[in-house]
Amino acid sequence: MKAKLIITPRKAVLDPQGKTIQNALEHMGYTGVTGVHVGKYIEIDLAPGTDRVAATKALDEAARRFLSNPVIEEYRLEIVD
Amino acid sequence: MKAKLIITPRKAVLDPQGKTIQNALEHMGYTGVTGVHVGKYIEIDLAPGTDRVAATKALDEAARRFLSNPVIEEYRLEIVD
Repeated sequence: MKAKLIITPRKAVLDPQGKTIQNALEHMGYTGVTGVHVGKYIEIDLAPGTDRVAATKALDEAARRFLSNPVIEEYRLEIVD
Repeated sequence: MKAKLIITPRKAVLDPQGKTIQNALEHMGYTGVTGVHVGKYIEIDLAPGTDRVAATKALDEAARRFLSNPVIEEYRLEIVD
């Protein structure tokens, strides 16, 4: 079982890394790109037989408390088998 | 339409950031974590009406050529509506 956590800057927060990639894509001739957002991806391997509900609760708390900065970032947590 | 690109270190490559998060989770009492991998997440907004096949081809090339480092990283590209 795995947990996938995606942390992205909030829409209102400046994302200079995303802007740089957007400019680079345009320069290199990739058209039709209207925006780019860069975030972090954290994949957490869980021991087999871990309780799904308990793991979701624990990791959601960890994500909120110290893996992300809720002031400027938002996160999405997904548990997959 | 959006493209989601996830770039992670290859399995054989050391991932000190992942190891740090794994240790931190253990210290804070989250048990059952057997491994953590940290990567980048890039979300690319595409103009409405963009051709899906052409966009996939172009972004796959961009991911391989300059958004990731194929020597030490692997990537996953997904196009969603």
